Amino acid sequence: MAQKPAIPKGTRDFSAIEMARRNYIFDTIKRQFKLFGYKQIETPAMENLSTLMGKYGDEGDKLLFKILNSGDWMKNLNDEELAGRNSVKLTSKVSEKGLRYDLTVPFARFVVQHRNELQMPFKRFQIQPVWRADRPQKGRYREFYQCDADVVGSDSLNNELELLQLIDAVFADLGINIIIKVNNRKILAGIAEAIGAADKIVDITVAMDKIDKIGIDNVNAELRDNGISEESIALLQPVLTMSGSNEEKLDLIADMLKDSETGSLGVQEMREVIEGINDLGHRATVEVDLSLARGLNYYTGTIIEVKAADVQIGSITGGGRYDNLTGVFGMPGLSGVGISFGADRIYDVMNQLDLYPEEVETSVKVLFINFGEKESRQAMKYVRQLREAGIPAQLFPDSAKMKKQMSSADADHIPFVAFVGEQELADGSLMLKDMATGEQTNMTVDQLIDKLR
Amino acid sequence: MAQKPAIPKGTRDFSAIEMARRNYIFDTIKRQFKLFGYKQIETPAMENLSTLMGKYGDEGDKLLFKILNSGDWMKNLNDEELAGRNSVKLTSKVSEKGLRYDLTVPFARFVVQHRNELQMPFKRFQIQPVWRADRPQKGRYREFYQCDADVVGSDSLNNELELLQLIDAVFADLGINIIIKVNNRKILAGIAEAIGAADKIVDITVAMDKIDKIGIDNVNAELRDNGISEESIALLQPVLTMSGSNEEKLDLIADMLKDSETGSLGVQEMREVIEGINDLGHRATVEVDLSLARGLNYYTGTIIEVKAADVQIGSITGGGRYDNLTGVFGMPGLSGVGISFGADRIYDVMNQLDLYPEEVETSVKVLFINFGEKESRQAMKYVRQLREAGIPAQLFPDSAKMKKQMSSADADHIPFVAFVGEQELADGSLMLKDMATGEQTNMTVDQLIDKLR
Repeated sequence: MAQKPAIPKGTRDFSAIEMARRNYIFDTIKRQFKLFGYKQIETPAMENLSTLMGKYGDEGDKLLFKILNSGDWMKNLNDEELAGRNSVKLTSKVSEKGLRYDLTVPFARFVVQHRNELQMPFKRFQIQPVWRADRPQKGRYREFYQCDADVVGSDSLNNELELLQLIDAVFADLGINIIIKVNNRKILAGIAEAIGAADKIVDITVAMDKIDKIGIDNVNAELRDNGISEESIALLQPVLTMSGSNEEKLDLIADMLKDSETGSLGVQEMREVIEGINDLGHRATVEVDLSLARGLNYYTGTIIEVKAADVQIGSITGGGRYDNLTGVFGMPGLSGVGISFGADRIYDVMNQLDLYPEEVETSVKVLFINFGEKESRQAMKYVRQLREAGIPAQLFPDSAKMKKQMSSADADHIPFVAFVGEQELADGSLMLKDMATGEQTNMTVDQLIDKLR
Repeated sequence: MAQKPAIPKGTRDFSAIEMARRNYIFDTIKRQFKLFGYKQIETPAMENLSTLMGKYGDEGDKLLFKILNSGDWMKNLNDEELAGRNSVKLTSKVSEKGLRYDLTVPFARFVVQHRNELQMPFKRFQIQPVWRADRPQKGRYREFYQCDADVVGSDSLNNELELLQLIDAVFADLGINIIIKVNNRKILAGIAEAIGAADKIVDITVAMDKIDKIGIDNVNAELRDNGISEESIALLQPVLTMSGSNEEKLDLIADMLKDSETGSLGVQEMREVIEGINDLGHRATVEVDLSLARGLNYYTGTIIEVKAADVQIGSITGGGRYDNLTGVFGMPGLSGVGISFGADRIYDVMNQLDLYPEEVETSVKVLFINFGEKESRQAMKYVRQLREAGIPAQLFPDSAKMKKQMSSADADHIPFVAFVGEQELADGSLMLKDMATGEQTNMTVDQLIDKLR
């Protein structure tokens, strides 16, 4: 019996239209990556589980897709282990490889493995799918693309400035209005220090990060629940209620952190970044946001997050400075800064605001109608000339009913249809129909090429 | 202890240079796919095992990479099954999904699943990696890309002509001299019929296919071993020794197959294809090869195979006409024709003949030397102007020793280095050094943009 075809839940087929739209986004990002001097690399879909396990926490380990060993996959299991049925513990005995979970760990592995071939600073970008065995839900998939750019081997703040310019350029090209939020991990550490709760930095920043969602009272309540003293909470209030321009915020926090070495360094870094990007020029709104606490355990300096200004959706791009990308693979102290464009959310934003140029959905520019063998042979010659001039064109392969051929042009958003009938065959011309206006014009193929090029 | 990083055997990292070369190939193929009106789709890396199993023979089933079920993967196994240790039989109880093995089965699944949304004839292309748990060896990988183009829902020979033109265009763009070999499954059936061994068509064609490798005597020996009668073998000899032009071969075989309806139809199809491509024009050598028997059980009409003329390597592209792509998924009788470009072998040929344009390895056009804060800020402004003019450029992020900065330009094949020192800062210029000639020229950034654009 025939199977009813389906794909695994949380995965997607991409139709021609969807691919055209997605490619428009990927190509835009890729073009800017290249203009900025990032070089593309690719790593395998499968990594050894020893590379992946323990890098994403216990929850992450569970969400890794594991590949069953080939051949007799039970051969490493003894009878006792089989009887014990401890799936989690036995996974490593039936599976040695997993699908990559993000692009960061494979990149770290790549840098260490190829350290002798790489020129530092090394600017790389990578656009590849990743897989997570998450529970699928709206906007969350088990296979999705990440678009990452990183520069490692340089701790200059010029790299942060470049990333901000890159973000600005990509979203300007895409036509998405954005707010780039900037913070610095050292400022967060300074705040925790200044309010006398240095050991509670994680609790404090996790609570602060929620202020937009839950409001100041609930943030304070959460701080209390986490055992932060009333005195510390009181000292934190000016940070939570801070408003004004970026410069005003920086002046306020500089004053508050003047006795914290780490905090002052963070303020200085942030000042350089904000002044630098203002000096260089930018189109996006750039906003100092001291509540931003993205990936706290990973980032060590600048933290960046991008929000769409006109659509309610989570962060569409994020990144920051880290100081120990590769330590776990035996290469400590490698500093770098990187960002990840959230392709699927950007896709949602683009769809919602309908920001695609009209040409994106047009693949073929001219469809030649098939009137039978002799006429279609001449049409194929014209099609060949068009293609060689860089214009996508095609002949309807079958000499089907006119209605069917015309409706295929409609369905495929083909803007022009060309007729080569007996008359045109005789005088070496073609009749071109503009599908938008209905207008018909007799012309030669050279004239058509001039028109469309 | 730090891990020594490695990747699973049979998989590859692609460095920046390798990616630049591979992208050159993929982009060339993709550009022609689009000019020819094929539309890109993508399918998920993971398919249900019910979609994949049984489609590639018993050997193929073994070579599928299977994904271990998430969570308690042992839960579907009873104690008896565990004790039985029959890995092969139990695989389906611990794994529901597998990685795609090729692009054909996912395409067939896609066509059936989305049949109501697709406009027929449907021309699609797909460039994605596939995975096979094959024993890795030189030139054989466990992860590799396939580049497929197919048109389904039309049985016109115009589609075959298009595929031949597409092949011709792709390899002309890449600069690879090729021989396109063409055969027809119906001619092979006709030959088997004409020599009185219709039931032995597979044995006959498998033996004939080896003629280039093992010679005519060994082909005849193999035919004998397979129980083909001496009379049949004698009748086959004119086919095996056939030489001359395509037209001469077609005349010979037409005469030999004149009493076979299937065979005569095959000859007629082949004649139309050969005459058609000659009429349309082609740069590659197109050769009728009656011993070609690629994918015999799958193809039903035209069979196409491409060899590199200047490099000893197997087929670098192949395809043909099929009549029942989707029957197994409950949609019988869908005819189509497709080809698959062997990206990895094409890559090997390109490398061996060193056919890449020089620009392929150049990413950044100009590197600005970093002389410190004030100078580098001005340099960043120039870099921004260059990028906005579409010219990849960058500033060395750190004000490192001149020697280090210059050698990074060398290592990255950057053709120009720009200096903005005190003097240039004062007069609003830059000093450009041509890395090939050593020549230095003072100019403005606008002049530089004009020069490089």
